[in-house]
Amino acid sequence: MEQKTTTVSVADLEALVIAALTKCGMSEADARTTCDVLVTTDTMGVLTHGVKALRGYVRRLRGGGLKAKAVPRIESEGPTWAIIDGQSAVGMVTSVFAMNTAIAKAKQSGMAYVGARNSCHFGPAGYYALMAAKAGMIGMAMANDYPSMVVPGAKKPVLGTNPFAYAAPAGQEDPVFLDIASAAVAGGKVRIYQALNKTVPDTWLVDKDGVPTTDPFMYPQNASLMPFAGHKGYGIAMMIDIFSGLLSGGASRWEIKSWIDDDPSWETHHAAAFIAIDVGQITPLDVFEKRMDETIRDIRQTPTAKGSKQVYLPGGIEWEKRREAIQNGIPFTDDVIESLQGLVKDLDMNVGWLST
Amino acid sequence: MEQKTTTVSVADLEALVIAALTKCGMSEADARTTCDVLVTTDTMGVLTHGVKALRGYVRRLRGGGLKAKAVPRIESEGPTWAIIDGQSAVGMVTSVFAMNTAIAKAKQSGMAYVGARNSCHFGPAGYYALMAAKAGMIGMAMANDYPSMVVPGAKKPVLGTNPFAYAAPAGQEDPVFLDIASAAVAGGKVRIYQALNKTVPDTWLVDKDGVPTTDPFMYPQNASLMPFAGHKGYGIAMMIDIFSGLLSGGASRWEIKSWIDDDPSWETHHAAAFIAIDVGQITPLDVFEKRMDETIRDIRQTPTAKGSKQVYLPGGIEWEKRREAIQNGIPFTDDVIESLQGLVKDLDMNVGWLST
Repeated sequence: MEQKTTTVSVADLEALVIAALTKCGMSEADARTTCDVLVTTDTMGVLTHGVKALRGYVRRLRGGGLKAKAVPRIESEGPTWAIIDGQSAVGMVTSVFAMNTAIAKAKQSGMAYVGARNSCHFGPAGYYALMAAKAGMIGMAMANDYPSMVVPGAKKPVLGTNPFAYAAPAGQEDPVFLDIASAAVAGGKVRIYQALNKTVPDTWLVDKDGVPTTDPFMYPQNASLMPFAGHKGYGIAMMIDIFSGLLSGGASRWEIKSWIDDDPSWETHHAAAFIAIDVGQITPLDVFEKRMDETIRDIRQTPTAKGSKQVYLPGGIEWEKRREAIQNGIPFTDDVIESLQGLVKDLDMNVGWLST
Repeated sequence: MEQKTTTVSVADLEALVIAALTKCGMSEADARTTCDVLVTTDTMGVLTHGVKALRGYVRRLRGGGLKAKAVPRIESEGPTWAIIDGQSAVGMVTSVFAMNTAIAKAKQSGMAYVGARNSCHFGPAGYYALMAAKAGMIGMAMANDYPSMVVPGAKKPVLGTNPFAYAAPAGQEDPVFLDIASAAVAGGKVRIYQALNKTVPDTWLVDKDGVPTTDPFMYPQNASLMPFAGHKGYGIAMMIDIFSGLLSGGASRWEIKSWIDDDPSWETHHAAAFIAIDVGQITPLDVFEKRMDETIRDIRQTPTAKGSKQVYLPGGIEWEKRREAIQNGIPFTDDVIESLQGLVKDLDMNVGWLST
């Protein structure tokens, strides 16, 4: 499954993202916020949730469904919580504001929940959870989406492939973090199997009758994604919609539009939830971080299974790729480069390293 | 896989549990608390985490590793959090006290985290999450355990099969709740495949080299359980140990003893975490509950997959079984009845409906 890659420096990529977003009318500050979310995610090797999505966001900014100049605002709040109306600003702008609000409230009160409604696709859940870890806190981030995933016993999609992330700070080691979707696999992974002309495991897709299928070519027209681990992924997806959509008073399930496929003049009404817990108020932070370090080192030294070179911590592969990418550039697959080429064409920009 | 069952009334079962625990020196109040956790779980059909475990708890109460008269105490606290030292009281006593503390603090502050250390096996995570839902709150409960589960790339167990649960209140409908282990399946399910002489899927077990095996007979001596959905279950198990063990200042991973296999004079030092969020402080509770009801009804009416009769909500099967059991008694499989027969023998009790 080796693909041709094009290596791009972090600086070149950041310059492109900021130029594209400011050209759409966003302030330099909001463009930089969005840029850091997307480029950081690409450095970690999570190419599905980085700049590849930018062309879609720009399309919606130009279509009016996303508002370049919108300023998310706190609608209601208490010492341990807030509800934010994103005003259909770009999802990263609302989500960074929401997690910063959660961190500030947790610093005052020990812990906090912030719900964000009228947001859009928030991209990489892990980025927001890691904001809390950088502040010495345990963070959680999650978001809902329109239904595209079946659940056990159902023939039709019931919930989104709702993502969940958490992060926890360590001392000298990198924070531990996990960023997962509720679906067994991303749709993109099914497309890789199409390209390889291979059958997929029978736990990934169901056909139009709701029956598991191993045929990747039925997706997406005639097959739907299944949740990970059956009822477990189902239950987690439901929890995410409750925290994101229902507790925030925001949209849920069919009230949400697709940020990719629906008319770009429509607001998508995605909702999200952010939780921060200030470790140092509960237990001495230095002791917690030392125990995290010890745990991380002990797990990393676990004898490996036959055929494995190393046991990684949750997030460990991402940190390794990020260090490499900062040093040597981000290795992008063709699909990302083509999306960026489309983006600069849409915006009538001239970017030397993207010229074909 | 139909097994012979013996039906026992809730009243008969409760009388047995309370008699057994008070005979071990527990107060009537603590015995009733423990009894409600275990018997409620059995009514829901989760027979692995109900009274089947009682014989093991009693063995440890008599051995001294569990303290019948211990009173869990708050070691430190703030408006949104508390750390509880369970003093090696029975895990249900400490856990109910901890979740009640979280609920009381959330009522004051909007949300709260309570960590419990020096506890023991807490049994059904879902019971504690549902305590919050009954109080109009969203609840989470989780607990760590000694390592018995490998993680991707590892040859040896790295983390426990750490359980996680959440629950959310509805209006006229039952609360939604999920109670899952981090492992792909419970060890008991592997034993069912042994009894049926069937191979297991290659995502359940790894052999001594850390390589997936489909041979159920290698378990438990020569095979270890895998996490659900690979790195997803691994990351969730790690999150649970961080919330339970490290944030509470309690024991983690190898510092925890087995409540089943280790010397009954040893304290096991399990740790657990409880979170409560008071919905009504954040958004109008009646609106939230109405939207929960609408969501539940809409999901329940989803067209069913070929071969399925109904789409259940998370927890829906458990509520259905509970109503049936309260009416007609709890249908126990032989393994539970045998465990109860062993219990009354250990305690030299005479229980008519258990006589052989």
